[in-house]
Amino acid sequence: MSESKYAVGVDLGGTFIKLGIVDDKGKIVKKISIDTLAQEGPERVVKQIKKGIKELLKENKKNIEGIGIGAPGLVILKKGTVENPPNIPGWGVIPLGNIIQKEFHIPTFVENDANAAAVGEMIFGAGKKLENFIMVTLGTGVGGGLILNRKVFRGETGAAGEIGHLSINRAGRQCKCGNKGCLEAYAGNNHLVTIVKEQLGEHKDSLLYKWSVDEEQSLEPKLIHDAAEAGDQFALAIICELAKNLGAGLASIINLLDVSNVIIGGGVAGFGERLFEQVKNAIQERVLKSISPRIKVKAARLKNEAGIKGASSLVFHRS
Amino acid sequence: MSESKYAVGVDLGGTFIKLGIVDDKGKIVKKISIDTLAQEGPERVVKQIKKGIKELLKENKKNIEGIGIGAPGLVILKKGTVENPPNIPGWGVIPLGNIIQKEFHIPTFVENDANAAAVGEMIFGAGKKLENFIMVTLGTGVGGGLILNRKVFRGETGAAGEIGHLSINRAGRQCKCGNKGCLEAYAGNNHLVTIVKEQLGEHKDSLLYKWSVDEEQSLEPKLIHDAAEAGDQFALAIICELAKNLGAGLASIINLLDVSNVIIGGGVAGFGERLFEQVKNAIQERVLKSISPRIKVKAARLKNEAGIKGASSLVFHRS
Repeated sequence: MSESKYAVGVDLGGTFIKLGIVDDKGKIVKKISIDTLAQEGPERVVKQIKKGIKELLKENKKNIEGIGIGAPGLVILKKGTVENPPNIPGWGVIPLGNIIQKEFHIPTFVENDANAAAVGEMIFGAGKKLENFIMVTLGTGVGGGLILNRKVFRGETGAAGEIGHLSINRAGRQCKCGNKGCLEAYAGNNHLVTIVKEQLGEHKDSLLYKWSVDEEQSLEPKLIHDAAEAGDQFALAIICELAKNLGAGLASIINLLDVSNVIIGGGVAGFGERLFEQVKNAIQERVLKSISPRIKVKAARLKNEAGIKGASSLVFHRS
Repeated sequence: MSESKYAVGVDLGGTFIKLGIVDDKGKIVKKISIDTLAQEGPERVVKQIKKGIKELLKENKKNIEGIGIGAPGLVILKKGTVENPPNIPGWGVIPLGNIIQKEFHIPTFVENDANAAAVGEMIFGAGKKLENFIMVTLGTGVGGGLILNRKVFRGETGAAGEIGHLSINRAGRQCKCGNKGCLEAYAGNNHLVTIVKEQLGEHKDSLLYKWSVDEEQSLEPKLIHDAAEAGDQFALAIICELAKNLGAGLASIINLLDVSNVIIGGGVAGFGERLFEQVKNAIQERVLKSISPRIKVKAARLKNEAGIKGASSLVFHRS
């Protein structure tokens, strides 16, 4: 006889909607994935979300405490609305929380996906025992979430935590947000690959050059990781530079907030311990002396299905 | 018959201790100033504080609700301790709150002076109606305080709000904290004057050159201000650059926290509207589009005796 509690987690992406039933320990007991059909317009996307939840709950005998949805774009918590997710065109403002709650008569919680990832780490992952931490999600962009006093800090409109748009160089690389020198313009996957390509010509003896130019392998963070693992000096230098950039941005946040724990998740986090140790060193080199000894940099613990687990954690966090 | 409430505000500086009796509207009804005697050691400084409060309360017939102390250095709120203020050598850790409370049998509140300035603006000044704001104090250094949900955000140890040590350039000017490109290394009074001196030789036709070199006037922010007022292009360019640097740092904080109100106080704030308008423009150029229309930059309202008023506001904030 199990006394576990269960929640539905919905990870709304631009291509797929991933859904799961998750227990209060963070274990996924059932999961499915369906197409978002973003190009067919927001009404169709909402239909897909409903269809997915129905499918997931079919033949389900567990008692579901709530539905958590992690959505891209600006989420207004009180109203449960999702505004203009960048990868679902024509969305506008949709009261997604209300719509789903009315359909299923189950309490529904909507949160920005970067914040949901932070809550996931707080409830199930590397932030379980932390009062405060800075969550960085390295992906195509650089996302973030601030957990202060075991709550998501949301700011005036719910947009807080945009670590990717902290500038580390007033006159630095152009970011697509319009600002210059944003952390995202150095540490986002696309930018990182661009930086490698810019320097590739000067490193014709590198493994990265051999694999990506001679052998025409796709130049992705994974390739940089593999080259570094094989001891390629150019790849190692790229990761070192990435760590210094992340460290510079994080040191500023740490000085500002006096929060000493950092959790890093997402694709580039696949660089693993090599990256984290260097990020920690870079932060410690820069941060105020009184804070330096407390600095900890950890890998996110929710790896596969971090999106589903993070979304479901919204239910357990509030219940 | 007045129903006003009163508090004692103590502004502990490296040279002078300024003390005042302040009513709950922020009006100073009596004030004195005595030497800190920092060079005679911490015990003597504590004696001076006691002496000052005694002197202030002599023949006082008002009902004092509490004593607020704004102190440099790290203040641990729960314990009321003040740690290693940079301008009072040999201090170590002193439970100043307890000592004063025991001596006078009046509830005593101790806070870092930059945070006390922020609370002063929240209770008496430009932040009266704001839920959230970023307080920047431009002086020898660049201090700061974060008011979030009408409370000082203090971080893990009370050190939060170090806006001066947010780096705007990973490889920028050396800051005395050890980091590079700190806002303080561009906007602190000493650094600002250094920057002017570095460029003075290229601007021999400027008023600033004439006044500071030919006429040997002391090169201080006030002189830059006066030259700008007189239309000096070099002085105007210096203020423009200062605004861009402040704007770059503040834009990062605003993107991170989704807090749209900035209050600027301290000496350089004497540059006035010219500076604030340019800081606002610089922030708006950089900040995320969704936040940009909300940005407001205001001058601190507590000018003279901001220290005494800020310290006294700690009493009214908590009562």
